[in-house]
Amino acid sequence: MKGSSGPSVPEASLRRLPQYHYYLVGLQAQGITVISCSAIGRDLRYVPVQVRKDLQFTGIIGKPKVGYSVAELLVAIESLLGWNNANEAFLVGTGNLGTAILGHERFSRFGLQVVAAFDNDPRKVGQCVHGKPVLSLECLIPLAGRMNVHMGIIATPPEAAQAIAEEMVKAGIQAIWNFAPVKLNLPEHIIVRNEDLYSSWASLSCKLARRLRVPLEENASLN
Amino acid sequence: MKGSSGPSVPEASLRRLPQYHYYLVGLQAQGITVISCSAIGRDLRYVPVQVRKDLQFTGIIGKPKVGYSVAELLVAIESLLGWNNANEAFLVGTGNLGTAILGHERFSRFGLQVVAAFDNDPRKVGQCVHGKPVLSLECLIPLAGRMNVHMGIIATPPEAAQAIAEEMVKAGIQAIWNFAPVKLNLPEHIIVRNEDLYSSWASLSCKLARRLRVPLEENASLN
Repeated sequence: MKGSSGPSVPEASLRRLPQYHYYLVGLQAQGITVISCSAIGRDLRYVPVQVRKDLQFTGIIGKPKVGYSVAELLVAIESLLGWNNANEAFLVGTGNLGTAILGHERFSRFGLQVVAAFDNDPRKVGQCVHGKPVLSLECLIPLAGRMNVHMGIIATPPEAAQAIAEEMVKAGIQAIWNFAPVKLNLPEHIIVRNEDLYSSWASLSCKLARRLRVPLEENASLN
Repeated sequence: MKGSSGPSVPEASLRRLPQYHYYLVGLQAQGITVISCSAIGRDLRYVPVQVRKDLQFTGIIGKPKVGYSVAELLVAIESLLGWNNANEAFLVGTGNLGTAILGHERFSRFGLQVVAAFDNDPRKVGQCVHGKPVLSLECLIPLAGRMNVHMGIIATPPEAAQAIAEEMVKAGIQAIWNFAPVKLNLPEHIIVRNEDLYSSWASLSCKLARRLRVPLEENASLN
């Protein structure tokens, strides 16, 4: 049971690890303590060889003809993903989306701890949303330093996102989860993950329109 | 001004089109009627040659030394994305995330019309969420046929998603926007877009953990 020595896990494997984690939590709840590669693959609809490769990054190796220890795998995945070191984050923007993130229990079970939310709407400042205090944006920089928070979540309208991101960087934040549909222009060392739901929607609706045989060619030349 | 004749737009361009659209709506609100490639590039932080390539897919060509007609471009982008044919959708799951999607005005401005929401929680059925009726899951198949709805949004817990997706397919739905962190097993002709926020979170927190020099190697071999 050696620890993973490689410094990086391929993005595709990384993105599957939460599914394994969720699945293993379910097994544990049923009292199952050992599980084979092929059973995991069958239940999650991955080929066993992929399961084995993904789980290798945790440093846990299954025993031949026995399988993996569910408890060991859970600890190793949580460790690999940094979930056992609760990730404290600030969230800016408490509209519909920000509120949904604050209220999403499963995120907190996976190590995301939003410690404070920020908004520029004076009607929201001072309120609590899902138990989290909503503070004025002016508090962001002083609080980030004092609380040693390194992650920021942007759930603002797109026109506000760049300025908020720059504030976050000034506040010492190193990783930004950006839900605003805009490209952020930030120093290279900042880790940014864009969650552009409008682009997803654009892609989906365009494909569906084509499927439903909307005469795009004709429409596209309207003027 | 010929219509785009190619059958498909590269995914990367497709995903940028909503940003151009949002930007152009802003210009129009300011009374700006013509805009150059380089000005768009400067404001959105893309190189002009990329802007020109992306916008070519709309079938609109800018005039040399003048630029694009803002109004023409808007119509062409909306047409290309199928947004002028309102996309009616069903949404299943009215928890935090489903509620946020229902309440997101900008989605509806971009052509997404959630016509009904569904939930299996009897306390929610019969209520309205952001003005949309919440119906029992049993109504999904009969209503989809009658209303000719082709898009479904899944915002349920992961363990429910596969069964819901299968119901949607039976109901004649052709495109599924899946927010549940699970791989759906569906016929090949169904258009699926996965929005796995847990995977995004996993990727981000893992990178931050590495940055903050958490001793992953040691932790990974805990057992």
